[in-house]
Amino acid sequence: MSEPLRLGIAGLGTVGTGVVKIVRQKANLLAARAGRRIEITAVSARTRDKDRGVSLKDYAWEDDPVKLATRDDVDVFVELMGGSDGPAKAATEAAIAAGKDVVTANKAMLAHHGQALAEAAEAAGRVIRFEAAVAGGIPVIKALTEGLAGNEITRVMGVMNGTCNYILTRMQSADLTYEQAFAEADGLGYLEADPELDVGGIDAGHKLSLLAAIAFGAQVDFDGVELEGIGAVTIDDIHQAADMGYRIKLLGVAQMTGRGLEQRMSPCLVPDNSPLGQLEGGTNMVVIEGDAVGQIVLRGAGAGEGPTASAVMGDVIDIARGLRLATFGTPAGELAALKPAKGAVPAPYYLRMTLTDKPGALAKVAAVLGEAGISIDRMRQYGHEDTSAPVLIVTHRCQRKALDEALAAISRLDVLEGAPVALRIERV
Amino acid sequence: MSEPLRLGIAGLGTVGTGVVKIVRQKANLLAARAGRRIEITAVSARTRDKDRGVSLKDYAWEDDPVKLATRDDVDVFVELMGGSDGPAKAATEAAIAAGKDVVTANKAMLAHHGQALAEAAEAAGRVIRFEAAVAGGIPVIKALTEGLAGNEITRVMGVMNGTCNYILTRMQSADLTYEQAFAEADGLGYLEADPELDVGGIDAGHKLSLLAAIAFGAQVDFDGVELEGIGAVTIDDIHQAADMGYRIKLLGVAQMTGRGLEQRMSPCLVPDNSPLGQLEGGTNMVVIEGDAVGQIVLRGAGAGEGPTASAVMGDVIDIARGLRLATFGTPAGELAALKPAKGAVPAPYYLRMTLTDKPGALAKVAAVLGEAGISIDRMRQYGHEDTSAPVLIVTHRCQRKALDEALAAISRLDVLEGAPVALRIERV
Repeated sequence: MSEPLRLGIAGLGTVGTGVVKIVRQKANLLAARAGRRIEITAVSARTRDKDRGVSLKDYAWEDDPVKLATRDDVDVFVELMGGSDGPAKAATEAAIAAGKDVVTANKAMLAHHGQALAEAAEAAGRVIRFEAAVAGGIPVIKALTEGLAGNEITRVMGVMNGTCNYILTRMQSADLTYEQAFAEADGLGYLEADPELDVGGIDAGHKLSLLAAIAFGAQVDFDGVELEGIGAVTIDDIHQAADMGYRIKLLGVAQMTGRGLEQRMSPCLVPDNSPLGQLEGGTNMVVIEGDAVGQIVLRGAGAGEGPTASAVMGDVIDIARGLRLATFGTPAGELAALKPAKGAVPAPYYLRMTLTDKPGALAKVAAVLGEAGISIDRMRQYGHEDTSAPVLIVTHRCQRKALDEALAAISRLDVLEGAPVALRIERV
Repeated sequence: MSEPLRLGIAGLGTVGTGVVKIVRQKANLLAARAGRRIEITAVSARTRDKDRGVSLKDYAWEDDPVKLATRDDVDVFVELMGGSDGPAKAATEAAIAAGKDVVTANKAMLAHHGQALAEAAEAAGRVIRFEAAVAGGIPVIKALTEGLAGNEITRVMGVMNGTCNYILTRMQSADLTYEQAFAEADGLGYLEADPELDVGGIDAGHKLSLLAAIAFGAQVDFDGVELEGIGAVTIDDIHQAADMGYRIKLLGVAQMTGRGLEQRMSPCLVPDNSPLGQLEGGTNMVVIEGDAVGQIVLRGAGAGEGPTASAVMGDVIDIARGLRLATFGTPAGELAALKPAKGAVPAPYYLRMTLTDKPGALAKVAAVLGEAGISIDRMRQYGHEDTSAPVLIVTHRCQRKALDEALAAISRLDVLEGAPVALRIERV
């Protein structure tokens, strides 16, 4: 058996603690599978004196993660601190410069600095693995980078923020308002310190940009992701969608178009009998479509100690086994800087707007849509007790840009109360 | 860029032709991902003169797959002939002896000779990869062997024969008898030359034995798989199961028990709102449960040119990238010869039997079950036009052995018409 593989772990929150537990409790199983022992030599975290439910006494302690990352007795730097910049990035760069491999769960860091880090790793002959950064325990990075490498990937989709899916499914199942479901998720500790990372789609957008880089051989381009959060989704939207046979999901979609790479993270309507439509609660799902394989659906826990630690360990065992490949599957220098193509792919849309009680309001709305070349597939207008009337419209396929311009024109007509809502209906 | 990786392909049926197409049509994409060109140098098949829709003129031809497997200009022997013994096995052994890596889609060969082949490959420092042998395009071998390697696997389940799932879903959706749905599948060319491989559960059982070997670090033990086909499932069973909120699937289950390794491939009832219950038509699904990751569900096409060729190419690219690991994830010499534990895990069962119109028949049946310690959860008896009456019983959890003994005793009572049917209700 080869020399042990020695880990230095920075960050001892839920995931870091989970990794320590697996390494301690499954030493023999891991050694049998990896062909060598996997050991922890040193750890680092913000607070040393804290009961984490697991003994750290066998490991050296470093206050400074950069020092940890460059220790002579560390082969793999396991970065579980989080944050796109700051200590996580500094320590990762230091680790690579010192000739260490890196395993990280840090989607924000890779979404913002993935290309530079991949180039640095390649120049140093080191690997960066990040299975835990996307969809928790689901081995989706591996499936996309390796298992499906014989395919031209045509589309990647995913529900990759469990908190948002929890909020949306609770709204439907318990008839809660967005605010009530948000408060419930908050009470359960599901939300990030900055909730906008979750409900604004940023966290899921980070993940989508990483999948897109692998799928399309592209440089990570988080700025190219069209982001739209779930804050504007109402319980009425959810009920209306359900009536029409749809569920509303915060869905990420990445696909190549004639105009460039389209990446979207936005609330979408998907058929309620599709795997994505049936996904409840905090579970994640990634759908990969390839020209040879057709559609592959992967489902599992998107967060939590065990699932995320499982993903970290998968990467660690890969390194222990000598499985080494480029960060995004293609050598960093060959990753293309693709043009972002926002709103390139047309789709039908669900529209909700509230009309003021002025004569001819609906006719004016329909006229503007017609002038913009947006045809109406279905429309419902509801009776109203006060002066305003909710109207629901499902359009035929149209460009988002044309739709947004039409909605802006409609807003200027002074026949709406509040802003109109437009949700894409995604073919899944 | 390194030297090209040179393939010798034996077997040019659907899958072999699909592999040739991918290698020809995606040369640059594959080279970018693999870091080297992937080329075909030689091919072999039973018939040379046959229009396969793809040109073979650039490749050397061998009538004898053993000669192909040992050619100097072949690095990887791609075995797509099928058959557990005969030319496939001879050529695979010859390839390993000649220092070639092997990629195969041959579940039967590995189910019967996996341990010996893994030992031979290990001794020769070669790899055998077989992603295409299980669940078509779904990268499940990779997920289990690599992505989830940090887990103690607690259970693996799968619907892995698309033909059986097609038959069962068609029975339900079109209200067909088993015979009608079977004939329909036959007409569509879905059935193997020997249909018992499909409907008898043998093909799916082969696949289950391979997953179990990886999951539990065990020597492949196909003989240890309890096999039960779908031939006894009637349209009435399907309707009754649906009434109770279940679907009937040919489900494989492998799990460690206190008595050894249990491997079952049998028609089971699963909840209709579970991912397995919702699986329609020819699609495959594998469910992997690990102590850290929880439940992972993988879904995709289980057969066909593109999906299976995609899986073959994933393995080929792994080899091109230098990703090498033991055939079943653990070195062959360390794989345990586990005791088979047939019927070890108790479960509730769905029972169907037809009572003759004798006074007290049902009471006698209930008495025998009671004496065997099998308690009844639900029972339905139906009105009848002639002399016999169908009875449906759902038991509480019981051992299969006790149940089989009780059913044998009931059969001896001379109160049944035909044989009783017992289908397991699996917790999924």
